[in-house]
Formats: sequence, C-alpha cells, structure tokens
Amino acid sequence: MAKSLPRSPLAPATFPDLPVIGGVRFAAAAAGVKYQGRTDVMLAVMDPGTAVAGVFTRSATRSAPVLDCQAKLGGDPGQGAAILVNSGNSNAFTGHYGQTSVAEITAAVAQRTGLRQERVFTASTGVIGEPLPHDRIVTKLDDLHGALSDTALQQAAEAIMTTDTFAKGASATVEIDGVPVQIAGIAKGSGMIAPDMATMLVYIFTDAIYDQAKLQALLSAENDTSFNCITVDSDTSTSDSLMLCATGASGVDATDHPAFATALRGVMLDLAHQVVRDGEGATKFVEIQITGAASDADAKVHGLAIANSPLVKTAIAGEDPNWGRVVMAIGKSGAKADRDLLSISFGDIRVAEKGWVAPSYKEELGAAEMKKDEITLKVDLGLGDGSATVWTCDLTHQYITINADYRS
Amino acid sequence: MAKSLPRSPLAPATFPDLPVIGGVRFAAAAAGVKYQGRTDVMLAVMDPGTAVAGVFTRSATRSAPVLDCQAKLGGDPGQGAAILVNSGNSNAFTGHYGQTSVAEITAAVAQRTGLRQERVFTASTGVIGEPLPHDRIVTKLDDLHGALSDTALQQAAEAIMTTDTFAKGASATVEIDGVPVQIAGIAKGSGMIAPDMATMLVYIFTDAIYDQAKLQALLSAENDTSFNCITVDSDTSTSDSLMLCATGASGVDATDHPAFATALRGVMLDLAHQVVRDGEGATKFVEIQITGAASDADAKVHGLAIANSPLVKTAIAGEDPNWGRVVMAIGKSGAKADRDLLSISFGDIRVAEKGWVAPSYKEELGAAEMKKDEITLKVDLGLGDGSATVWTCDLTHQYITINADYRS
Repeated sequence: MAKSLPRSPLAPATFPDLPVIGGVRFAAAAAGVKYQGRTDVMLAVMDPGTAVAGVFTRSATRSAPVLDCQAKLGGDPGQGAAILVNSGNSNAFTGHYGQTSVAEITAAVAQRTGLRQERVFTASTGVIGEPLPHDRIVTKLDDLHGALSDTALQQAAEAIMTTDTFAKGASATVEIDGVPVQIAGIAKGSGMIAPDMATMLVYIFTDAIYDQAKLQALLSAENDTSFNCITVDSDTSTSDSLMLCATGASGVDATDHPAFATALRGVMLDLAHQVVRDGEGATKFVEIQITGAASDADAKVHGLAIANSPLVKTAIAGEDPNWGRVVMAIGKSGAKADRDLLSISFGDIRVAEKGWVAPSYKEELGAAEMKKDEITLKVDLGLGDGSATVWTCDLTHQYITINADYRS
Repeated sequence: MAKSLPRSPLAPATFPDLPVIGGVRFAAAAAGVKYQGRTDVMLAVMDPGTAVAGVFTRSATRSAPVLDCQAKLGGDPGQGAAILVNSGNSNAFTGHYGQTSVAEITAAVAQRTGLRQERVFTASTGVIGEPLPHDRIVTKLDDLHGALSDTALQQAAEAIMTTDTFAKGASATVEIDGVPVQIAGIAKGSGMIAPDMATMLVYIFTDAIYDQAKLQALLSAENDTSFNCITVDSDTSTSDSLMLCATGASGVDATDHPAFATALRGVMLDLAHQVVRDGEGATKFVEIQITGAASDADAKVHGLAIANSPLVKTAIAGEDPNWGRVVMAIGKSGAKADRDLLSISFGDIRVAEKGWVAPSYKEELGAAEMKKDEITLKVDLGLGDGSATVWTCDLTHQYITINADYRS
C-alpha cells in the first residue's frame, strides 16, 4: 500500500510553493474508493473561456475515462471545464459498467458546477478490472464543490497518488508583454511508466489566454521530448493522461509565444523528472544523453533501449560501471549502430571508444561515478547528428517488493 | 559468481543420458580464462562430411566470434569441422584485439586437428569488453585434442556455463528408413535472454546425413518458434549462437524428412525450456499461449509483451493473479487488440472475457493457480486465427541480486 512505502531517497525536500492560477479552483476529499484514511478524489473547476488540451495513452486497452476524455477534446472553450480524478481504482477493463461510471460522475459534476457534461473530464488510477464504486465519489461532490479554493493545488496532488511516495508539483512564471503569466502543474506516477505516452496523470494550469487548437499542438509537441522520454519499467499504463488548461485569467494572450513554450517545457520536464525520482524502488536518477545517431528517432530508440534494459538498470543499482551492458543494449535496440564508432562516457569519464575500452579508463573512476545519486550516461554513435535525452531510474529489490506484493 | 548460485528450483532432477553421436567427439578443459577450479573450454571435432548450420544474434554490437562464424557459414562440408567455446569472457566489444583472438584460436585448432581454418567455429560467453586471454586457451589445445571422446558431451555442457545453475542437454532418436538416427544437443544461458535470437549458446549434433543448405533453412525455421519464443529479461546478448552439425555417420539421409524435423524441434524446445527454467532468479516457468490474433506475428508480439512485462513477471513472482497487468501488456504491445473481445485464462480458469472479469471467476481460483511452479496464461484476442506460444519465467529478488552484484 502506498502509505507504507518510505519516501524516495531521490525526492525533493519539500513540495514547492505553487502560484495561484487565476480562473481555476481545486478541492480534494476522502471518498474511500479503495484507500482508507487519506484523500482520493480531486476536483478542478475552470472558468468559462478555458482552453483545454490533452494527450492520452495509446494503449489498445485504455480505460473508460481516457476514452471519454479523448472524445471530448476540441469542445467549446466558452463553457468552462472541470476535471475530476480519483485514485485507488483505474476503471480500466471494466466493460460497459466502466462507461456507466464515467457517465454518472460527469453528469453529477455537470449538475453541481453548472457546466455542460461534454466539458467535464475524468481520470481514474489504481487497480485494473474492478468496478469503480462511483457512488462513493458522487456523494462527495457537494463537499468538493463547497471546498473549491484557488490555493488547494497541493491537496489535489496528494489526492491522486497511488504508489507515489511524494506529491509532485512544479511551476513557472513567464513575463509576456510586461505581464506575468503563471503556469503550475501536478503529477502522479511511479510504476507502469513508459512511453507511449506520459504514463501517468499530469494536470497543468495556466492563466494565459491560448488558442485551444494551438494549445493542443504545443502540448503534443512538448510531450514528445519530456513525458515520452521517461521510463521506469517499460510498462505502459491504461490510464495515462496529460492535460493542460489555459484559463485566460491573466488577460495575456500567450498563443505562439516562444517564452511561454519554454516555461511550459520547464514545468513538464520538472514533473517528468519527479516521476522518475519516484520510480518504484528507485535509488538512482539516470539521464541518458544520446548523440551522433543517424536520426533523432534512432537516438531515442537507443536511449530507451538502454533505459529499459533490466541488466543496465540492475548494474546501476549495484553501482557497477558495467559499460558492456550499455553496449549490449545499443546492439539490441534495432536502431543503427557501428560497434567501432561508438563512444560511451559515465559523467565526464570516457569509458569506451572505437569499439573498445578507452585507453584512459580506469575501473575506479567509473566506480566512483556510479556511487552518485544522479548519474549521466553519454553515448555517441559517431554516425550523424541525431540526438535525444531520456531519463530513468535503477532497478532494485524494492521494485520487486512493491510489485510482487502490491496489487496496483 | 556462477558456482555460488543455488540450483534453480525449476531444474530437471538430473542431466539426461545423451546418446553417442557418431562422427563427433568432445573434450573439456580448465584454462582459467576467468573462473578458477572449473572447466571453461570445450572442443568438438567433427568428421569430414559434416554439414554445419548456424543462427546468430542480430545485435549490432555482436562479438568477434559471432562475426567470424557468420562469415564461415556455407563452407565445404567435405572438410570436417570443429567448434571451440570458452566461458568467462565473451570477446565482445574488444576491438581489433578481439578479431586477433579469434584468428589465433582458430589457427591453433586447425593446426592441431588438421582441419582448414575456415571450418573452425568459436564462441565466447561471459564478461563484455575485456580482452580474451586467448593464450590460456591455445596452451590447452594439446590436452583437449588428446582427450577427445564420443561420450564427453555432458562435460562440454558443463564447460560452457556462466551464471547457469545446471548444465543443459536434450536428445531424440528418430527412425528413418528403418535406421535409428540420433540427435543430441547442449545449451547454456540464463540471463541476457530474449529474441532476437536464441540469446544463448546452443550446439546440436546429429549423425544424420543432411544437405547443408537445407539444414540451414530447417534450423532457421525451427528457431523462430523455439529459441526465438523465449525471454528471461528482454535483453539480447552480443554472443548468441545456435549451431546444428550433421555428421552423416548413421549413413541415413534425413534431408527433408518430416520425422527428423519433428525430432529436432523436440530437442530445440527442450533446450529452450531448460534455459527459461534456469532464468536468473526464476521460481516459476510460464507458458503464454496466444490465440485469436489478427496474425501469427501479432500473436508473438502480444506474447512477448506479456512475457517481458516487469509488472506481469513480478505479479507472478508474488503469486498474484493480477490479470489487469496482462490486459495492460496487451494494450501496450502495439499489435491489434479489442478490449471488448479479449479473453484471458490462467490455466483452465477463465479470468476475464468481453472486456471485463468473467462472471464465473473467483479470486481464490486464480490464486490457487498462481501457486503452481508451472503456470499457463492463455489469451484469446477474438480477432482472427493468429497464434503463438512463448515461454518466460518470473522476476524475483534473486534476479536483482545476481545482476546488481555479478558482472556478467
């Protein structure tokens, strides 16, 4: 169970101070969906004029809430919007009953908030294949609606945790036309994390004005090099949801503004890295930088092959500078590689080059690098200009303990 | 280190009695390549008239011995042949020095045996990236050559072990035109096991006469549904080698004979299953039967997605009938699936159907099934006639212990 897991050693010291985002309010409640003694439902309600964008799992067995959200993207921003998320039960592989649960919840939220049902989005995360006790959620809606507050984003982040050992939040402020625009987001995720896609739940809010179609394009593009570049265990969730809501409360139109995109990317990367830092059982945060690949796509394939290799991940857990396993992972990835052009570094230590161990390399240098909490693996293919960076964690006994014993 | 690992609980009770294969002799020796106090080199020498076929890893970073073997396939069977294998060092990612090692060893074997160098095949298995001390092997060649015996196949199987906890052998006898034809094989492998391809070392010998080109075609075809359908950890070795040698000593031509193909397939499957049974840390042997897929290729993709999922494998280790994770793996595989047509069984227990848990399913039935040492997962996609069967093992603490501490 989530509550008994020790906080990840890679966690940030505290939850960040998040700015108020005008035009959106939050509330959390304990509905007892599955967990006892903690909050497990969060509601976000956004003012009319809010543009909503989303990216969802590509799983062929995706959950009822995901299918419902996908159908609702592109709706009229004039209506305002709401997001309701529960933890403890994913409402995935629950047949027609799953669709009924979504319909019941969205209808009830629409009725309480005065929003149209087609602007009410939901997500569910937790066990697969058990019916969602949606009545427990519906009966909490009056409480939730009454508690809505523009400062409750941290409580929302806490309510959506499952095996997470810490709540995840990030924010940025960007000045556009002399006016500060705020971006703040929350995320949950620690297992079943792999592209495609973000493999977690992520909700980001901004008070910028943003054209809804362009907001969708921006979110999809930034997702490719942030949430789609992290992996914990190569398993893709049935519930992955990433949503970005622009309320417009700042009065500033950020559409196509590069500074906004940069700030948004910073928030997305921060949240993505926090998910890796909370990877089930993680003790090392690993950045894998691939350069010199035949293409960017090839670079990402190599990076993810290394990041997903159990033998690489266990070597990192054992603080073993076992670069031979990195060579193995490159070899198996399917993307272009030439053994004799490869070079590999651990941090700034050149380990291998020209098809063999680097002449300057000494085992004790690699071993010292591997003792760090944050490790950078650099691979240059020597073939072209393709590059990618991906992030992962190590594979430890604690991952086995969590997943052999916990039904998530 | 290999010697300190406990024997797999899934291991057969004893090494099988293998028949003598006319036309081939074996020897093993302790050369001290890396391990001390055990044999680590095996030599097989085959009479003139031996057809040789081989299938090798597709890794882009494959080892020097693999590259050398691939170049030598299709040579003149009139010359006889030899295979030399060492454990403890894979001679992979060892640059030009690696090619020199192969040349030195094959030249020395050719000189001792009177064979042409182009009919001397080698393999090396063990640590990646360290120079192979080939002199230690060459100085043992007189001993090996003097010790050649037609009854030393088990000793050969023992010499090629690395993290294996038991030596692997299998055999079959098939009567062709009233004459018994023998097939016997050995294998090593327990980690870095995944398609493509066989991800291990396998040597099979028969006293049948067989056209060399057709032997190659037969081996490649049978490999696709045997060694290419097993996975331990999704990692593909740089050294995978599968060779089949037909000495012709029985005087019986088995070329294109269906009974021979069937017997060969039996030996290959037996060895493949033994590799899974020795999967690092394995406590469960898992057969995954996929039916009703859109194609056989799709079925294999689904099967391997399930077999390689850390979340499925840890659930099995925990004896948790967590069919939701099977649904997740099908969803992420990328092959065609329709959530509402899927059905899943554990053994004979129908668990899920029509997009939800089966009405007859009770958790205690699934839990009882998961307590078995050998587990069968059946998935029917409900889409077409495609089928495939793949084999894997569970993912346990012992896998982490072996791979976080052992530099293989």
